[in-house]
Parts: sequence; structure tokens; C-alpha cells
Amino acid sequence: MDRIYMDHAATTPLDERVLEDMMPFLKENFGNPSSAHFFGREVRKALEKAREKMASLLGATPEEIYFTSGGTEADNLAIIGSARALRNRGNHIITTSVEHHAVLDTCLALKEEGFEVTVLPVDQYGMVDPNDVREAIQENTILLSVMYANNEVGTIQPVEEIGKIARENNILFHIDAVQSVGNLPVNVEKLSVDLLALSAHKFYGPKGVGLLFIKEGTGINHLTHGGGQERGKRAGTENIPGIIGMAKAMELAYSELEEFVPRMEALRDRLIHGCLEMEEVKLNGHPSQRLPGNVNVSFEYIEGEALLLSLDFKGVAASSGSACSSGSMNPSHVLLAAGMSEQTARGAIRLSLGRHNSMEEVDYVLQVIKESVDKLRSMSSIYQGKGER
Amino acid sequence: MDRIYMDHAATTPLDERVLEDMMPFLKENFGNPSSAHFFGREVRKALEKAREKMASLLGATPEEIYFTSGGTEADNLAIIGSARALRNRGNHIITTSVEHHAVLDTCLALKEEGFEVTVLPVDQYGMVDPNDVREAIQENTILLSVMYANNEVGTIQPVEEIGKIARENNILFHIDAVQSVGNLPVNVEKLSVDLLALSAHKFYGPKGVGLLFIKEGTGINHLTHGGGQERGKRAGTENIPGIIGMAKAMELAYSELEEFVPRMEALRDRLIHGCLEMEEVKLNGHPSQRLPGNVNVSFEYIEGEALLLSLDFKGVAASSGSACSSGSMNPSHVLLAAGMSEQTARGAIRLSLGRHNSMEEVDYVLQVIKESVDKLRSMSSIYQGKGER
Repeated sequence: MDRIYMDHAATTPLDERVLEDMMPFLKENFGNPSSAHFFGREVRKALEKAREKMASLLGATPEEIYFTSGGTEADNLAIIGSARALRNRGNHIITTSVEHHAVLDTCLALKEEGFEVTVLPVDQYGMVDPNDVREAIQENTILLSVMYANNEVGTIQPVEEIGKIARENNILFHIDAVQSVGNLPVNVEKLSVDLLALSAHKFYGPKGVGLLFIKEGTGINHLTHGGGQERGKRAGTENIPGIIGMAKAMELAYSELEEFVPRMEALRDRLIHGCLEMEEVKLNGHPSQRLPGNVNVSFEYIEGEALLLSLDFKGVAASSGSACSSGSMNPSHVLLAAGMSEQTARGAIRLSLGRHNSMEEVDYVLQVIKESVDKLRSMSSIYQGKGER
Repeated sequence: MDRIYMDHAATTPLDERVLEDMMPFLKENFGNPSSAHFFGREVRKALEKAREKMASLLGATPEEIYFTSGGTEADNLAIIGSARALRNRGNHIITTSVEHHAVLDTCLALKEEGFEVTVLPVDQYGMVDPNDVREAIQENTILLSVMYANNEVGTIQPVEEIGKIARENNILFHIDAVQSVGNLPVNVEKLSVDLLALSAHKFYGPKGVGLLFIKEGTGINHLTHGGGQERGKRAGTENIPGIIGMAKAMELAYSELEEFVPRMEALRDRLIHGCLEMEEVKLNGHPSQRLPGNVNVSFEYIEGEALLLSLDFKGVAASSGSACSSGSMNPSHVLLAAGMSEQTARGAIRLSLGRHNSMEEVDYVLQVIKESVDKLRSMSSIYQGKGER
């Protein structure tokens, strides 16, 4: 069997239809959209058409869409930019313990500028309790940042309810929706959100491009200075092929959502059930409120890294936690936040399914996991010792 | 005749050979380089190979190369990052009045954080005097930022000499070299530079990617927070196709420099001389120390914008000043800094030549300029009035 990719939460392949839309902008349509001549005007038109398309899909206006180099920059711009802009109104920020580092580390870094940060706990499924949000709000709270769905364990947060709390209390609400487009309906109106960050390469679009939705009337201090692109909020010549590709990728993600979700859920559930049939294994994340393609399981008595190596050797690509932190050797902050011991957290692996995965692949992967787990446990003195007790 | 593009300082077309190198990374090699599995490792290898290639071309080590979303981000990271890192040593920054806004506005924005900024004047050719640099140095000077070559008038600054002054005085030296690669030899050792910013789309590489050279041992505060990519200095999943493309584009720029420069200079000089043969026209920028493809001329009694419109109508793409500021209607800050009156500055146009331009195109453009200038002047009451005096 060919290599099997089950790490779509880390990145997705570029959809062929997306690349096709990008090609003219990698060839003849190369102008700088800020140029007034023909070459620039043609590209400017395409850029604004892409902006309109994405705005419409998100339920926003084109003026509320700002292009960035990816999800990380969008999160940083949202959090640092709005916190600094609201500094005179208050200095308290609320976020959660399971955010991606692009949010969590950014909030914590603001402490150096005199901001106070409350990091909310989660339950055993990695879920935030809206009551905790309500209780954390202080008179000086200006910003609340909660991810839509977790990149590691797939848990979907009650963002609609949290958004209402934010609105009632006149607090800016930022959603890191990087894992959501293509997996969940994302509509800024429905989510009562002021700031929302996306990354194209997570939904079969190109790397190096993302966007930030900034609700009309929301003040944001820009982080960089330059040529005044993106209405002064984000300087630098626009990544045109990237933006064109993101628009097509988003269009496909929305139009295929209805077909995609149940197909992924069927693969996911077969994979989860197959894993849970093995011994001493635990599902991480919420049993039902989870991303359609996310499987995160902990195998006791083995190291996740060793299991991944064994899977990789057999042509199966999966991950432990997020790609961004792989190599760090620290157990996942998300699993620890959900109350897992360090040892159990180290036994976790994530399989994230995507467009091209099949039921046949799922069955093959289950077989490979079982063989690998058995072999690793047979070499594990702790596991062996357990039998002797 | 087909449309003629003479705005290469704004952006260049992507070289076909560059796109060819990028294609595998827009197709099958789609992995996240932070992923430990096969898909990630293959991409990581290519990423590091690209880094090594670019480091070697620049005379740097791979550890000194940091990828960004473009020149603007690289300039911002260099200036804000190093200024903040050196805040305890001093708070004085020196730059020049002809920098791109990505440098000038960034330096000026640091005033809000308590930095003092000296903006050096230039002579009538837009050139900085190294003696002015020397005299501007104070005990608390920590950073000096000077562009290698000006994007509007093409003047090449005496950066080698300025770099020596910076080194003698133990001041960090940043060069905005965005217009230089492909037009000038760029070697970080020779330039005595600590920080150097590049943008791929200015040398026939893709949009949305650039790099910052940070000399080993130079402290930089990162501006964004996230997954720890680029050794913690620049978070966010790497724009892999972009980086691969930038490496190929840089390789071509260096290997073809010797052939490219005299060919551009011949086109440039024919264009300049042809323009200067017309009446009441002035060359802007330095007569000899200028980029091989840069022509910037002012036609008295007409508006540059009107002339550009007329050229555009006849299929010739040129610009007034930088693309980033076009549409602002303000006269170029570079021309004003060089002592030009607002009215003369408004009569300036820039033609920037590139790889695909020919002598035949230059001759056609000269003819079109002459016709357009004559026509615009025939409609200008000021110009007509002049004859009646």
C-alpha cells in the first residue's frame, strides 16, 4: 500500500482545483496590485473579488477581511493589536489552557506590557465551561480569546454561547478558527465574534497565507509598518497567488462541507472504535463534540513517539499533538490541561483524517497500530511487569 | 506591439525555472516541515537545503537566515526586534530620509516607545553622506538602517563605508536590500552588516516570501508568538513553495548577474538619453551610482500621473515613485528629500527595466513618451503660457 497521510490537522495537500486557480497568478498575472497600470489593475480586481468571495462565505463584508501570512500572524495581530488599542479601557485578557501557542503564548507575552491574563481551565474532554468564562470577567476585561475547535484533541468549544457572554459584557471576542473551516460551519454573525483567524493550508489551500476577520468598528493597532496595504492594517505586497488560492479553497470547503463531514465522521468513528477495542487505550477529547476527522488516543505503557516511529516505518503518517511543537519532547499542554498524567499524555497519538482517506486505509492503519502497540508493549518492562503483579 | 512592462521595481514576473522548482511543493511534497513523519521530513530537508543555498550566496551561515512573509516583515522584525532587544543599552536610531516606508515608518513608530530617531538628509541625487552618519552617532545610538539602493530613484548608497562606521562605533547595521539582489552583488561579509532584508518577488521569485539575515550573536526580540518555527524568531508554518522558489530565484539572480547588469545598463542609458533629448526634462537620482535598470525622470509642466495614464493607454506600464504609495497622491518623499519642488516631483515617472525588456521596446517607449509629453504639454496652459512670456 502507498504511504497513508493521516495528519491533516498539521497541514493538508493543496487541492488540484485550488492550484489551477492559482496558476495564472504564478504566470502572466504577476502585477503588484498597488500599481496603477494595467498589470496592477487586473490583479487588484482579482484580489478584491477573492476578498468579496471569502467575506460572503464567512458572513462578513469585504472591508472586514484582512490578509496575513497565515493563522499565527492573524492570531497575533488580533490579540496584540486589539489589546494595545484597548489599553486605555482595561488590561485584562481571558483565554483558555488548550489554545494553540499562537494564542496562548501571545496572551502571556502581553503580561510584559502590563496586561493581566486569566487562563481558563478545561474539563477532562478539553472543554471550556461558559460559566467559567462568565466568572472570570472583571471590570477591566477587554478581550476574550477561545479557539473554535482544538487542533490536538478535536474538542469543539461552546463558542456560540461564549460569544453571547462576551457581547453581553461588551468584551471583544476573538476566535482562533484555524482548524474549523472545512470541518464546521463558520459564520461570524452566528458566532458573535469580533476577530476570527484562519489559515489556508489547513483547508487544502496554500501555505503562507491566512486571514483575519476584524468586525467593522473594532480598533486594532497594526504590528508592522510599511506601504499601507490592507487599509493600513497589514503592510507588505500581497501574496496574490496565495490569496486567490485561499478563496478557491474556502469556496470548496463550504460547498463540500455537507458531503465531507459525515464521510469523515464515519472514518473517524471506525478508527476510534477499532482503537478502543485494543487493551488499555483511552480516547482523548470529547466523545461527541469533536472535529469530524480527529482521532486522539492514548496507549498506556508505550511512548507515543515510539508508536509514531513504528507507524512511519510502515508508511502511516500520524502525529503526537501539534506539528508546531513536535520535537520539543514536552507532553502536550492540551492533554495536561485536560487532567492527564504526564505518562499517559506521552502515550497519545493523533490521527487526523482528510479528503483523500478511505475506509480501506482506516482498516489498514488499525491493523498497523495493533501490531505496533503489541510489539512495543512486548518490549516494555513496565507492561510486562504489570502482568506479573 | 504587446503590452510592455517597465515596472520591475514594483514586482517582477515569476521566472519559469523558479515555478518549476516550486511545483513539487505545490503538489505531492505538501508536508508540514515540523512533522516528524516522512511527509514532514522530506519537506524539512528541502527547506534546510534552500536555507543553505541562500546562506551560501549571501556569504552567511544557514543559522543566520530567517524566513519571513516578505521584505516589509523582514524590515520590521530587524528594526523593532533589535531596537527592543537593545533598549537597555540605548534608545537612539539613525536612518535616512529616502528609506522605503517599511523602514522609515517603522523607525518613526518606535518614537512612541521612547526611542529617539535621527533621519539623515540626502544630497540632490538622493545619496547619504557617510560623514553625516558619523556626526549623527551619539553615545546612546544602537541601530543604523540604510537601504542599499533606492527603489524610486535607483541611487546606490555607500553602504560599505557606512557599514564600517557602524562597526567602528559598535552600532547594529541594518540594510534594506530589497531592490539589490539581482542588480548588485550582495554579500553580508563585505557589507559589514548585522541585519539584511530581502523580498523574493523583487528578483523573479514568488510573492509572499522574504528573508532576514541576522548575524550570529545579534539579539532580536520576536514580534509574534506561536509554534517556535525559525528557531523561535518567526512563528508560523513555513511558506514552503515560496521558500523553495526564493532559493532558485536567488541562485539565478547571482549566476546571471554578470550578464544581466550590462544588458540593463545599456537599455537604461538609451532610455535616459532618449528622455533627456526632450525639452525641460531632468534625471532624478544619481547619474552613475544607480541601479542598472532604473530610470526616473521629471518632465516639467506635466503631471506624472497624467503621463502614466497616457503610457498605460498605449500599453506601457511604468509608475510614479513606489507602487506601495501609488494612489496616495502625495509627491514622493524621496524626491522631496532630494530637494525637488513639489511641482517638479509631481512630474516624475519611474521606468524600471527587467529581464524581458529589449532595445526595441525601449525605442518604442521613448516614442510613446515623446508623443504623450508633447500632447500633454499642448494641453497645459502653464506650458503654453511659458512660450508667451
